[in-house]
Amino acid sequence: MSVQGQHYREFVRTFFTSPTAVEGEDDSAKMLRRAAQLRGMEAPDVWVPDNEDATAPSMRDEGAENIVDVVSEHGSDFPGQIHPRVVWHRNDPNTRYRGFQHMLQITDPEKRAVEFIDGFVIPEVGDIDDWKKADEFITIVEEEHGLEEGSLAMSVIVESAQAELALADLRDEISKPTNNLGRLFLLVDGEVDYTKDMRAITPTGELPSWPELRHNTSRGASANGLIAVDGPYDDIRDVEGYHGRMTDNQAKGMLGIWSLTPGQVVEANKAPLPPKTGSWLLDTNDHAAELKEEDTRYVYEGSALELEETSDGRYRLRVDGDERELNADELREELLDLIEYVPSMNDIVDSMEKFQAAKEAGKGAIAMEQSVTLLIDRTEINITKDRMWDEATYQAAQTPITLFQDVYENRLDQHEELKKMYGRNVVERAMNVG
Amino acid sequence: MSVQGQHYREFVRTFFTSPTAVEGEDDSAKMLRRAAQLRGMEAPDVWVPDNEDATAPSMRDEGAENIVDVVSEHGSDFPGQIHPRVVWHRNDPNTRYRGFQHMLQITDPEKRAVEFIDGFVIPEVGDIDDWKKADEFITIVEEEHGLEEGSLAMSVIVESAQAELALADLRDEISKPTNNLGRLFLLVDGEVDYTKDMRAITPTGELPSWPELRHNTSRGASANGLIAVDGPYDDIRDVEGYHGRMTDNQAKGMLGIWSLTPGQVVEANKAPLPPKTGSWLLDTNDHAAELKEEDTRYVYEGSALELEETSDGRYRLRVDGDERELNADELREELLDLIEYVPSMNDIVDSMEKFQAAKEAGKGAIAMEQSVTLLIDRTEINITKDRMWDEATYQAAQTPITLFQDVYENRLDQHEELKKMYGRNVVERAMNVG
Amino acid sequence: MSVQGQHYREFVRTFFTSPTAVEGEDDSAKMLRRAAQLRGMEAPDVWVPDNEDATAPSMRDEGAENIVDVVSEHGSDFPGQIHPRVVWHRNDPNTRYRGFQHMLQITDPEKRAVEFIDGFVIPEVGDIDDWKKADEFITIVEEEHGLEEGSLAMSVIVESAQAELALADLRDEISKPTNNLGRLFLLVDGEVDYTKDMRAITPTGELPSWPELRHNTSRGASANGLIAVDGPYDDIRDVEGYHGRMTDNQAKGMLGIWSLTPGQVVEANKAPLPPKTGSWLLDTNDHAAELKEEDTRYVYEGSALELEETSDGRYRLRVDGDERELNADELREELLDLIEYVPSMNDIVDSMEKFQAAKEAGKGAIAMEQSVTLLIDRTEINITKDRMWDEATYQAAQTPITLFQDVYENRLDQHEELKKMYGRNVVERAMNVG
Repeated sequence: MSVQGQHYREFVRTFFTSPTAVEGEDDSAKMLRRAAQLRGMEAPDVWVPDNEDATAPSMRDEGAENIVDVVSEHGSDFPGQIHPRVVWHRNDPNTRYRGFQHMLQITDPEKRAVEFIDGFVIPEVGDIDDWKKADEFITIVEEEHGLEEGSLAMSVIVESAQAELALADLRDEISKPTNNLGRLFLLVDGEVDYTKDMRAITPTGELPSWPELRHNTSRGASANGLIAVDGPYDDIRDVEGYHGRMTDNQAKGMLGIWSLTPGQVVEANKAPLPPKTGSWLLDTNDHAAELKEEDTRYVYEGSALELEETSDGRYRLRVDGDERELNADELREELLDLIEYVPSMNDIVDSMEKFQAAKEAGKGAIAMEQSVTLLIDRTEINITKDRMWDEATYQAAQTPITLFQDVYENRLDQHEELKKMYGRNVVERAMNVG
Repeated sequence: MSVQGQHYREFVRTFFTSPTAVEGEDDSAKMLRRAAQLRGMEAPDVWVPDNEDATAPSMRDEGAENIVDVVSEHGSDFPGQIHPRVVWHRNDPNTRYRGFQHMLQITDPEKRAVEFIDGFVIPEVGDIDDWKKADEFITIVEEEHGLEEGSLAMSVIVESAQAELALADLRDEISKPTNNLGRLFLLVDGEVDYTKDMRAITPTGELPSWPELRHNTSRGASANGLIAVDGPYDDIRDVEGYHGRMTDNQAKGMLGIWSLTPGQVVEANKAPLPPKTGSWLLDTNDHAAELKEEDTRYVYEGSALELEETSDGRYRLRVDGDERELNADELREELLDLIEYVPSMNDIVDSMEKFQAAKEAGKGAIAMEQSVTLLIDRTEINITKDRMWDEATYQAAQTPITLFQDVYENRLDQHEELKKMYGRNVVERAMNVG
Repeated sequence: MSVQGQHYREFVRTFFTSPTAVEGEDDSAKMLRRAAQLRGMEAPDVWVPDNEDATAPSMRDEGAENIVDVVSEHGSDFPGQIHPRVVWHRNDPNTRYRGFQHMLQITDPEKRAVEFIDGFVIPEVGDIDDWKKADEFITIVEEEHGLEEGSLAMSVIVESAQAELALADLRDEISKPTNNLGRLFLLVDGEVDYTKDMRAITPTGELPSWPELRHNTSRGASANGLIAVDGPYDDIRDVEGYHGRMTDNQAKGMLGIWSLTPGQVVEANKAPLPPKTGSWLLDTNDHAAELKEEDTRYVYEGSALELEETSDGRYRLRVDGDERELNADELREELLDLIEYVPSMNDIVDSMEKFQAAKEAGKGAIAMEQSVTLLIDRTEINITKDRMWDEATYQAAQTPITLFQDVYENRLDQHEELKKMYGRNVVERAMNVG
């Protein structure tokens, strides 16, 4: 993708690193070339040819050359943005100087890769003053190579306590006249090195979940108009775990995640999008079980909840061991508290359209109703859930739709898959709502 | 309540918003008037006639008029403080100017409402410099209307990442000579808009729980002598959920909560007060079950724990599936770890009186003992729990009592209910202890 | 331990307070003397003769005298560092002045205690400017008594919202020319007073767990090269709870904890060290159960998982109620996700040695393999877990080994116990790796 006239999207779902040179590989540019040719759901929003950790230390000069070769050859067709990661360390001027040299080399206009480079990723940053050092090198790179000042983006990996603290300083520093920190793009957590920097220990050696770091990164992104991205999920076979992590992140406003494989890219591209079909959950003490649709009824098959209609038209309900006798209204009330609905893309678009129409008709709030027939232990019961929508509900519901619109506008290569997933009609309405 | 000589209480339990004007209502001041006449447990500590979100955008000028009308008529008799919410937005100067005009209008001395206005609530604030803009407008309002500088309180709704960051800047800014931020009163979280600002997504659309935001708000309040209040709890039928949220908040030092209905006000007025009677809990892996008092014994009726006396005077105890053989002493030790006591108001006052007496007698620490007879699966066992009280324990125990004293001094309209709840004797002792 | 040429260790596991004078004790220096004679696993890394909370207010002048007496007599033989706690309060100049006087008194060179005093612990600090006041007093103490400027360490108790905020300011202030904050050593959380300062309430009166405070303290320590220590664990009989708290802290990078008794010191000295023998865990929804070694097999004895081999060479697996039919490969895959290995000291040293050898041979990443035979409901199954180790994995694994090395170098009195615990060979290899 070209740096000229770029418009950073508000949302980045996938931050995909691929090694630029691995010791022992026959063709050290092979993995880069493979990554450059990913398309559709397998292609990331941001591709990071990685000349730091994923590249052997002795191969990094060659790695920078490989980036130039592969990006100049394949860059024009790559559907996402391209942000190589160079070496950097808050404690080591020599590493910082090498990173500067690699950036100069990669953006050499004679080599033609620069036309497709959107920015750089700077790992191991420290205080905000360390961020400024990297920013200054990029400014010099731009000047040396005749690029517009500020046109190259800069993303940082937050993997030290210092950098976490810098997240709170950023807003005071980002618009100072003597830096170009306005070029900042992604704030990416790097939990492996962060864990080392914090000197944390877990019995099995697995990474702590660092909820506060992720909150602070997301907050820093929100306060400065940037995008928060979570770190790598090592266990690449564990798709369920990767999904769980993304759900947790999304509730923190961290909608992007690092991907280590094209398989992870697919999962991470889809995870923040609303589902194709809605689903009902029944949420007992232990966990939320999805109800199974059968004809037009939703069947509960778990064992945490038992329901029986007694002879006199009353019900006996047992939830997590607590048993109660209820009449039909009480039972409905009780179940209302237990069920939840996960709306589909179509549902969200529907509700937004309804609310917009109501607003145009002068109404500030309307009730959205949803009915469902539950089948629990062979007892059938009808439930209607309603929720008041006002301006705030409407705007909060908008986040996944805005995300979808942003994706659709920027990722032409995913149009076919998105239409196949949602249907052409839903896609069109989603693009017009809000 | 009058602004003159006001003494902000240290604790605010209830922050109750009522719309000032709803499109389509016959009498747009009706809901305001109803709110102004709440008394006792149904009346909040802070009543917020809401001229922002709860009022239709086109009705806000009329809303300000309604505030003036209703507050001038009913303000003198309202038992809590009155802090109208005006419009404001960190990103929109026009909205800020309208908020300024509404404040000028509401406090016009000729209209007599100002005598009962304690301050204003400013929503959607950003950086600390944005807080200062609102503060400056209030200073001008005071000057224009002949009020003492700093006499009107200012509360803010923290509903953006920027405002969350400002919470950490506040202590450095609050006493600067060129502002009157000393007028700050409540720091109120607003999770709906915050969720939007953080671009967070949850599958069902329900709000994330934002523990870090609540911590940071509570910390900002504590560091600056202010009061932290949690945001609205939308599901107004879910009393249990509202209580759970308050318990969670109280453990964070956030003792106040937004109430959307007089029913929620009742719950929120009572929740931080100690209970009338103490209770014993048995806490197994899964959750804490309250023991049922029967005669003088406390009966465990759950199934997570099984106890059996074996023929040889020993016991077989099964907790969450783990079975062990124990003698009576070992059993007692085991159960000691599992049971907890929730002290009543009377218990807390008792312990404080005992500790005060000991301190006067020259002792720095004393043991508080509590005995209980448990009945588990028909086996009876006696247990004595003791806890060392020193100065720190004493002072920590004091928080709910200080809260009670503050409420009792400020809310004459709740005296009858409090005496009925606790008994006259306990109330008197609670007012004299500490 | 002597102040001259001291080299603060990177890790402090145990922060042990003992009262310097208790009202009513026959010999008010008795408890101090007992503490001064602790050795080996019962002796803490940092011993804190406590002239604040653990000493009766009226006895504090005598307490300071007792510190001088006991430290001058026993200090030379004490195996850890000695940091007395003096009185201090952010809101009370009189208390601060008394703390200053006690520091002057304790470090009087004629009394000879100062040779063994490594620094002071300052409780109840507020803003960073309050920290500077204490720092300035210590500078004056050093000047008055002919000690090198900056040679006395200063540790603070973080037990107010103000002090928690100061943790984020520290890095900007610590190297300013007009202070000696470079003397900072431990950042210790004090949750009892913090709970009071935050005005938090829990139903049973037990302390909130304050995860954000602990994160912020650990982050402040990491960003400034200091050491984070968690507060006291009151329930001294509850060894399991103390261990749970330490595991939670260690995952936050907070490797030290306050100890109230020599028994707690033993637990806290051992907790961050890797175990003598590795263990396999099986982690189902509810919790991680340790597998029992029997011959060379690891037996699952819980009930959350059921396994049965069906006639046709396939398996029926039931986890938390979910039942599935699997072939041998699918079963292995499923179990791989459920089991975890807790490596022993020997395992960690082994892996590090292997990785170092690979690195010397020019490899950047190698796979570490581990095989285990599981026995579940009489069905035997072989599983091989492998994990990629790269530079980052290696460095993260290093934290417990660096900790061990630091302990071993500084605590000669624990050598025997450590060799007995791990075996001489493992200890030697652990000292040479990394």
